[in-house]
Amino acid sequence: MNMISFPPRRPRGKVHVPTVTLAHGGGGKAMKDLIDDVFVAAFDNPLLAPLDDQARIDLLDLAQYGDRLAFTTDSFVVDPLVFPGGDIGKLAVCGTVNDLAVGGALPLYLSCAVIIEEGVSIDLLRQVATSMAATAREAGVKIVTGDTKVVNKGACDRMFITTTGVGVVAAGVELGAHRARPGDAVLVNGLLGDHGAAILGARGDMALQSPIESDCAPLQGLIESLLKSAPNTRFMRDPTRGGVATVLNEIAEAAQIAIEIDESATPLRNEVRGFCEILGLDPLYLANEGKIVAIVPPDEAEPAVEAMRAHPLGRQAAIIGTVVAGEPGRVTMRTIFGGRRIVDMLVGEQLPRIC
Amino acid sequence: MNMISFPPRRPRGKVHVPTVTLAHGGGGKAMKDLIDDVFVAAFDNPLLAPLDDQARIDLLDLAQYGDRLAFTTDSFVVDPLVFPGGDIGKLAVCGTVNDLAVGGALPLYLSCAVIIEEGVSIDLLRQVATSMAATAREAGVKIVTGDTKVVNKGACDRMFITTTGVGVVAAGVELGAHRARPGDAVLVNGLLGDHGAAILGARGDMALQSPIESDCAPLQGLIESLLKSAPNTRFMRDPTRGGVATVLNEIAEAAQIAIEIDESATPLRNEVRGFCEILGLDPLYLANEGKIVAIVPPDEAEPAVEAMRAHPLGRQAAIIGTVVAGEPGRVTMRTIFGGRRIVDMLVGEQLPRIC
Repeated sequence: MNMISFPPRRPRGKVHVPTVTLAHGGGGKAMKDLIDDVFVAAFDNPLLAPLDDQARIDLLDLAQYGDRLAFTTDSFVVDPLVFPGGDIGKLAVCGTVNDLAVGGALPLYLSCAVIIEEGVSIDLLRQVATSMAATAREAGVKIVTGDTKVVNKGACDRMFITTTGVGVVAAGVELGAHRARPGDAVLVNGLLGDHGAAILGARGDMALQSPIESDCAPLQGLIESLLKSAPNTRFMRDPTRGGVATVLNEIAEAAQIAIEIDESATPLRNEVRGFCEILGLDPLYLANEGKIVAIVPPDEAEPAVEAMRAHPLGRQAAIIGTVVAGEPGRVTMRTIFGGRRIVDMLVGEQLPRIC
Repeated sequence: MNMISFPPRRPRGKVHVPTVTLAHGGGGKAMKDLIDDVFVAAFDNPLLAPLDDQARIDLLDLAQYGDRLAFTTDSFVVDPLVFPGGDIGKLAVCGTVNDLAVGGALPLYLSCAVIIEEGVSIDLLRQVATSMAATAREAGVKIVTGDTKVVNKGACDRMFITTTGVGVVAAGVELGAHRARPGDAVLVNGLLGDHGAAILGARGDMALQSPIESDCAPLQGLIESLLKSAPNTRFMRDPTRGGVATVLNEIAEAAQIAIEIDESATPLRNEVRGFCEILGLDPLYLANEGKIVAIVPPDEAEPAVEAMRAHPLGRQAAIIGTVVAGEPGRVTMRTIFGGRRIVDMLVGEQLPRIC
């Protein structure tokens, strides 16, 4: 007699997996219960508690941190929702926190607007909310107001999140791409392209032995250290969509200077290098979600690298290039083989729905 | 010989209708061009111009208006995108402006995050952006920062917009549902249910002779007049999703009082009344996008109604009920026929994607 193995018997009857229904978006009791149960429970803080459709923050409290309010917004449509190193919730908090921090602002408060497709499981929603709450704690920000919309099946791909942040810029902090000068150093805080490679890998078209993890992280702490050691930093930007290449082109264009980077100095994980070679991708265009590009005056470059390396999110910080007095707007790279090539602005898309 | 009419001959070759492609969401040149061409051109203002991924606003400028920052967010997923009386752009500005204003804040700045489905026509995008800009001007707010994401065909239903607003609450303004007291008057500024009926009508399942127009409008001006004439107003809320019935239930619950409204005093357009009768809908649960419910102390009720009636958006303002010392949380209505019925909180959804 042959040994035949049967799959384990499934329990009789339907297993009830609670999901989001259109009733949860109707503005009535079901919606209130969902918001209380999932979001208010996860984000728990006194400003959110009244749920008055708006949070109120004392202007005097804000003024202790600086003289200007910073205000930024981003929608997140990443596919898949959960990936090695994070999920859409973590990403939505990091993305907006980092947009505030690279502008020199101390990130303080976030709003969170979620669009959910009917049929998404409540468990997934709870996982995302919990991840948002944990990342917000790590970043020192509070999620103080929000909104939930539910759309019919097929009208959105499971879940989109829009976070908007307010922060405060300290007096005297003046950052701008136009401030870059020939001689300035171009710095990054670590290995490039991890987020882009992680998302592509997670889409499952490639069988990766060990998955590449997204670098997704809130950078306000690293940036605070950097600005202390290099107070005359000209400009910072988080190289998300479009990667480092796009940010360098924007800086070269805004300051009407040229930038030269050195391929051998560009920190890349071996797995990402291999991944890009197989797929014919250029890692300079891959998205990062826990990285900054900083333009720093020459005499502050070494202290800046040291400060970043002393921070857990900057261990592999490096000077990757220099601002030069070449053709305005031109970004070039000295290749490992000793040649030079132009690093152009990305014209089309490389990877849709990367963030 | 029979007369045969031919359809007009179509021009040879493809007619090129410019549409949004995934390249417009890639973070590169195509995205920058789209944002410059459509959004920056429409929203034109000096704070947006640097497009630094964040807007900066002097705290001293804010402090001249009051002592507290108000912060609120909403996603808009309305279907259809264009409807009698407005479109998703107008709605997205009104919704957030009104959320700020009903909390007693002067609305000042908005962010705008747009998620676009691949294939949407650039003309539609431009129409929506132009409509946002016009409504922002009317509301006295500036759209100062934004984000654009493009998702693949089928991943979202054409266009979702998330607006986030910041405003300032003047010193001494204290509004809260818990402040409602027996004897207070319940006011609305006009005809109820127009937005909900307009959207349902526009979905095209009914052949309406003259379409009902949405009441979608920014209410900061009306609310300013109201607060001047009724400075001790207890609470205001815009009865959007879930309608007036839901707002009244929330107030009764928060203040642990009862509310009694009078059907004969409830202002309703005849077309909306008929529409609801045919469809078996209760107009008290229909969404409004240019209406407020205000709870006003008895001695300020008449001045409040007069102030609203003097404003173009409050011509049909009315006292529709009273706060009473009944069963806490209970909302009832005296019907036209002299009976009384309970007006409960909506449990499920009435109309999905109404805003």
